[in-house]
Amino acid sequence: MTASALPGFAPGRTLRPSAKVLPEHARNHNRALVLQTLYRTGRQSRADIARETGLTRVTVSDLVNDLIAENLIIEMGPREDARPGKPATILDIDRTAFQIVGIDLSEHALFTGAVLDLDGTILSRAEVALAGSTGEDAVAKVIALTDTLISATTAPILGIGIGSPGVVDLGGVVLSAPNLGWKNLDLRSRLAERFGHPIVVANDANAAALAEHSFGGADGDLMVVKVGHGVGAGLLLGGSPLFGSRFAAGEIGHVVVGTDGGALCVCGKRGCLETWLSTPNLELAIGLGRASGTHTDRVLTEAGQRLGIALAPIVGALNLPEIVLSGPTELLDGTLIAATVETLRSRTMAEFHGDLTLRMTTLGQDIVLRGAAVMVLSGQLGVS
Amino acid sequence: MTASALPGFAPGRTLRPSAKVLPEHARNHNRALVLQTLYRTGRQSRADIARETGLTRVTVSDLVNDLIAENLIIEMGPREDARPGKPATILDIDRTAFQIVGIDLSEHALFTGAVLDLDGTILSRAEVALAGSTGEDAVAKVIALTDTLISATTAPILGIGIGSPGVVDLGGVVLSAPNLGWKNLDLRSRLAERFGHPIVVANDANAAALAEHSFGGADGDLMVVKVGHGVGAGLLLGGSPLFGSRFAAGEIGHVVVGTDGGALCVCGKRGCLETWLSTPNLELAIGLGRASGTHTDRVLTEAGQRLGIALAPIVGALNLPEIVLSGPTELLDGTLIAATVETLRSRTMAEFHGDLTLRMTTLGQDIVLRGAAVMVLSGQLGVS
Repeated sequence: MTASALPGFAPGRTLRPSAKVLPEHARNHNRALVLQTLYRTGRQSRADIARETGLTRVTVSDLVNDLIAENLIIEMGPREDARPGKPATILDIDRTAFQIVGIDLSEHALFTGAVLDLDGTILSRAEVALAGSTGEDAVAKVIALTDTLISATTAPILGIGIGSPGVVDLGGVVLSAPNLGWKNLDLRSRLAERFGHPIVVANDANAAALAEHSFGGADGDLMVVKVGHGVGAGLLLGGSPLFGSRFAAGEIGHVVVGTDGGALCVCGKRGCLETWLSTPNLELAIGLGRASGTHTDRVLTEAGQRLGIALAPIVGALNLPEIVLSGPTELLDGTLIAATVETLRSRTMAEFHGDLTLRMTTLGQDIVLRGAAVMVLSGQLGVS
Repeated sequence: MTASALPGFAPGRTLRPSAKVLPEHARNHNRALVLQTLYRTGRQSRADIARETGLTRVTVSDLVNDLIAENLIIEMGPREDARPGKPATILDIDRTAFQIVGIDLSEHALFTGAVLDLDGTILSRAEVALAGSTGEDAVAKVIALTDTLISATTAPILGIGIGSPGVVDLGGVVLSAPNLGWKNLDLRSRLAERFGHPIVVANDANAAALAEHSFGGADGDLMVVKVGHGVGAGLLLGGSPLFGSRFAAGEIGHVVVGTDGGALCVCGKRGCLETWLSTPNLELAIGLGRASGTHTDRVLTEAGQRLGIALAPIVGALNLPEIVLSGPTELLDGTLIAATVETLRSRTMAEFHGDLTLRMTTLGQDIVLRGAAVMVLSGQLGVS
């Protein structure tokens, strides 16, 4: 045997195998692969799927038969183009067979929710005013909203996805969400016990990043910066969300920006990104500016520059191709984004980062709701 | 069927399946799992391995027999503790059966190399003075050094790993290494054609991060900041190296630090991290400081603070648990690291980053050579 005859692993791609692969794992994986192929391209025959996935026709047929029995795939009839022989049967995911409940807890004044189909299209909406609720009162409002949404579904429920502010671990425990007064709240288990459906709870900005990846046209590594009452980010690297050592990846709102001071932050430090960029602080600065004759553009330019200063080392370290902003368009789009782009350009190497895209999300205010749906699709079907 | 009976995927862990799993993939994966188990723990019986990996005894025995035939595993004899019945045969990776050639092109004045065993222990060394060589002359010196090292091996060669400065793509093409005058140089193919062994070429700081992960005690997400003629970093996230959209992840040397100006950098900007932290610039600042009566500690403190300012947004975004510095200990260890830690503490949230570790590597000047060996181990055997 020569050394080069050893089986190859992609150099450096994955360092080490972490768990055995058994036949049932391969089957689940390949099942998800069939679903993903149909989910993304739609309307294909068994032979098309075999060609696309590299699986044998027998394997594809077996998997498809199971998925038809589970109501996830439907036969749409024979292919219409007349080729010689028996026409192939066209398949598709039955995008109406299941519905998803998505909930967004990240707004300051209200919890919003929606029923979505498997394409992430919003079918109906509901909301509940927060009215300052925290702790168990806030949990009760989540439950009430979930009840309302479940009543509004018109097909079996695939699962319930929730985007929460704060730090959420992989088991759906909200470790810390100060605005809601939650600490170590096992929201996932609470809701699972109550509703008996699969529940996924994740950080709101992480959910937003998933939405952008699945429905917003993002391709490759991605950072979504979510600007609202606070400032947070969600990262997708190598196709996977980044969680961080204490599940606090993306918590950039309380990183100090620059070396020239700044306003006092609620956290006690000076010059945190939130002091420049959160919606309340931006609105306050614009109001104060107007009173003192400072043009709004100047306030927005400075906030955009600060965002650029904070993002430059992150862009440098990750060599990110795309950053997407989510939040109030009237504040973020235009002047502010332009200042961020210019600042990033002047503080990083054009050779590596010249084609970085920085843009507003196209998903508007529904980004967390749709991300919550992606969490369910990904968790239950392995598609996104 | 109820929705909750659908096969589960770990929520949010991996978004979508990217390739089919066929029986031979499972076999290669499980083969690597057996090797990895023995590589990390050493001296186990077939039954131990089956227990550890969750594979059946039959599967383990089949894989072990193949690996013995390939000289990768050896039988060490019967287990010595006397249990009833026939004693189990103890197996281990034959750590001397193959050798690895590792090469470090990141030093400014010379290329260094080593022959290593499968444990990453250095068996012999060689070096070649660069003497200002660039372009093809520098390639010729890599080839000469490789020749010397191959002659020094005393066992079959598993592969050749090379850590190069600059930006290196996944195929081992050095896209850009200005100090060596290399642009789009397909170093991997050049060496593979010449030497006929498996070759892996990667960025030097990425190699350093792999070494720290495998041999330096790092556990979990990790950033290695390599300080030398330039400043670069290597990131390991979720067990995988991060490469970035243009393979330039970790290139933080030319990110501007702070909002109060700074020295003019070779790149044309002012206040890049390298102007504060590269070895030549640090030595220059210390020399100038001495001449003007500034204490060396003050220069090192300021450099450490600048590193902290640059790292704070990265730590915030990634929620990193560990950062390791590699470079001249006499400059980095002590005052400088303490200033970086203090700066990181004052610019991020203690709640999320309070247990961040920042330390010098324990691998000293061999970090890239040993990382080059990890690249070969990981690429050829799936172990690290």
